Amino acid sequence: MGKGRLEAFSDGVIAIIITIMVLELKVPHGSDLAALEPVLPVFLSYVVSFVYIAIYWNNHHHMLHLAKHVNAKVMWANMHLLFWLSMTPVVTGWVGEHPYAALPTALYGVVLFMAGLSYLLLQLAIIGSDGKDSPLAKAVGGDLKGKLSAVGYLVAIALAFVQHWISVALYVLLALIWFIPDRRISRVIARPHASS
Amino acid sequence: MGKGRLEAFSDGVIAIIITIMVLELKVPHGSDLAALEPVLPVFLSYVVSFVYIAIYWNNHHHMLHLAKHVNAKVMWANMHLLFWLSMTPVVTGWVGEHPYAALPTALYGVVLFMAGLSYLLLQLAIIGSDGKDSPLAKAVGGDLKGKLSAVGYLVAIALAFVQHWISVALYVLLALIWFIPDRRISRVIARPHASS
Amino acid sequence: MGKGRLEAFSDGVIAIIITIMVLELKVPHGSDLAALEPVLPVFLSYVVSFVYIAIYWNNHHHMLHLAKHVNAKVMWANMHLLFWLSMTPVVTGWVGEHPYAALPTALYGVVLFMAGLSYLLLQLAIIGSDGKDSPLAKAVGGDLKGKLSAVGYLVAIALAFVQHWISVALYVLLALIWFIPDRRISRVIARPHASS
Amino acid sequence: MGKGRLEAFSDGVIAIIITIMVLELKVPHGSDLAALEPVLPVFLSYVVSFVYIAIYWNNHHHMLHLAKHVNAKVMWANMHLLFWLSMTPVVTGWVGEHPYAALPTALYGVVLFMAGLSYLLLQLAIIGSDGKDSPLAKAVGGDLKGKLSAVGYLVAIALAFVQHWISVALYVLLALIWFIPDRRISRVIARPHASS
Repeated sequence: MGKGRLEAFSDGVIAIIITIMVLELKVPHGSDLAALEPVLPVFLSYVVSFVYIAIYWNNHHHMLHLAKHVNAKVMWANMHLLFWLSMTPVVTGWVGEHPYAALPTALYGVVLFMAGLSYLLLQLAIIGSDGKDSPLAKAVGGDLKGKLSAVGYLVAIALAFVQHWISVALYVLLALIWFIPDRRISRVIARPHASS
Repeated sequence: MGKGRLEAFSDGVIAIIITIMVLELKVPHGSDLAALEPVLPVFLSYVVSFVYIAIYWNNHHHMLHLAKHVNAKVMWANMHLLFWLSMTPVVTGWVGEHPYAALPTALYGVVLFMAGLSYLLLQLAIIGSDGKDSPLAKAVGGDLKGKLSAVGYLVAIALAFVQHWISVALYVLLALIWFIPDRRISRVIARPHASS
Repeated sequence: MGKGRLEAFSDGVIAIIITIMVLELKVPHGSDLAALEPVLPVFLSYVVSFVYIAIYWNNHHHMLHLAKHVNAKVMWANMHLLFWLSMTPVVTGWVGEHPYAALPTALYGVVLFMAGLSYLLLQLAIIGSDGKDSPLAKAVGGDLKGKLSAVGYLVAIALAFVQHWISVALYVLLALIWFIPDRRISRVIARPHASS
Repeated sequence: MGKGRLEAFSDGVIAIIITIMVLELKVPHGSDLAALEPVLPVFLSYVVSFVYIAIYWNNHHHMLHLAKHVNAKVMWANMHLLFWLSMTPVVTGWVGEHPYAALPTALYGVVLFMAGLSYLLLQLAIIGSDGKDSPLAKAVGGDLKGKLSAVGYLVAIALAFVQHWISVALYVLLALIWFIPDRRISRVIARPHASS
């Protein structure tokens, strides 16, 4: 399995997700300010999802850069990640249309949690294929950030049924944390033999 | 005809099919659990189709890796395969909206059968171009798995009008069989001169 | 301007056109044979358009393979071609929904004519950049086939208002003529210094 | 961060935007000339947006060709540009459906302004990474054209509420100005050490 073709395929799928998502913003049904009002929460939810998909593209890029071998397990772990990322537009649209409802807010978190989980599984699949002394294994270490954000999504899902604005705030906060590119991996790229 | 550009074009088309298919999941018309209920069969049918398209991408990748020449016949056999794969989202949506009806279940099988058939035709076109001693010819041999699943789809199409759940079970079963990457081809890649 | 990036961008746009076009086939509004009936003309018009787009991809591929330089004029001639190709899905859908009406049949021909014309203009732009002794110039010669099919589309547009089935037959016939890859160019690729 | 993968991802997103935009032209609801009439302003607005996206693809291509390093800042500046470009189809559809209304015309200008601004920010991010003596810095100089068109969009936004046809004329005029590929950059590519 060529790493290049897996990267190209993933980039294609992520490019389609991020673009189509914004294109699904519907043309307003009037031509005045009142027609724009219901579009605002939809727009804001798309901005958050756009940042999330961009973060995944960026980190996916760095992770595959460090990967040495791509076997069938890695291929399917990658497909699993792409599946959950492709769920983002639907839940984004649902949250945007019902910005004050608990269930859409919770389901948005479920998709983020599953995407985060499948990213961790992909990481494990690559490390399992490349070995514990591989650059990726050294770069991610225990991956505290990845595990903590998974817990953060779980908390946000539960809180959606209590006070959903806290969930929304958590989603934005966890996006901001990942906004910063993974310095651990960048460090290893610069000095390939450094231990984490 | 460059093999690289055919691979890139096919990857592009398959990436669009697999992504758009999931994106066609419609945003539910309410914000409670009742609104999610009709989405469930649609979601499940999309999961099955996602796995099928992923399997085709994977096997297509391995097959073209072994191909030596790409002539006009191979180009059109590939386009024929892409045409039937691009039919998957429509029949997936139809099955998801009518999960208990015979005709959509049967038509889903027709598309799977045509995709399987066009894959076999593409395989023949490449072997016809590369010769009977080519790596691909040795790798696939009589391609019992490919022919048996074609028969399986025909049985499922017929049974859709008798007891459609058996058809659904067959579609899932045949996906699981192909889930495992084609070991014959992987074997030949590892030892290029081995006979099947 | 890199030829590779122009090819990749064109391939991307054509892959999206050919895939989305088929995906726009709507899910039928029932689950019996009667629900499938109105889908049939739509399906057939999509098959014809799929073949046309595939032909353009194939010939575009061969033409750019022979091109030596890509300047701003070539870039815009290429964009012009992509614009008319991207019009195919809309007119295909219109013809499919009104298979017995004159105007949609005629407009389908207008888009085919404009795509054919823009292809000829792109050819001229490349020859203008590469020179009259360039491989492409020798390969296409006077391009009788390209000019004759442009005339054929004009005839089909006019006949759409007299007896629209003749137009439909002409569209299918002209697709079949182009189905065969451009042997003149293939010949030049094989023997690069042959005169046309 | 590999420059190649950033270029490929951007090309993918831009190819999807430019194609989907035209595909969103809806199939008319009749088969006569009257059915085509409301489609005309939509068609014309799509032509203008198609030219804008093509210009951005072209200039983006030239700019990244001159870039030497791609860091996280450049990556996010590029994502920011892609976000505003992906807003083009929605505002294009809105302007096309309400060709005589002030607000859609103004919002179209807002998206063009934000796209122009994010392009300037991307340019600054690349120059910040490559240094003031880098080929790109020398090529763009003070970038009077980029700054003047940003001012032009602001004027057009304001005039949309006074006489919206002047805004439309300004959008077309500013597209024509950018239609000509950036000669400053082309010049530097030809003579890499020339000062602007």
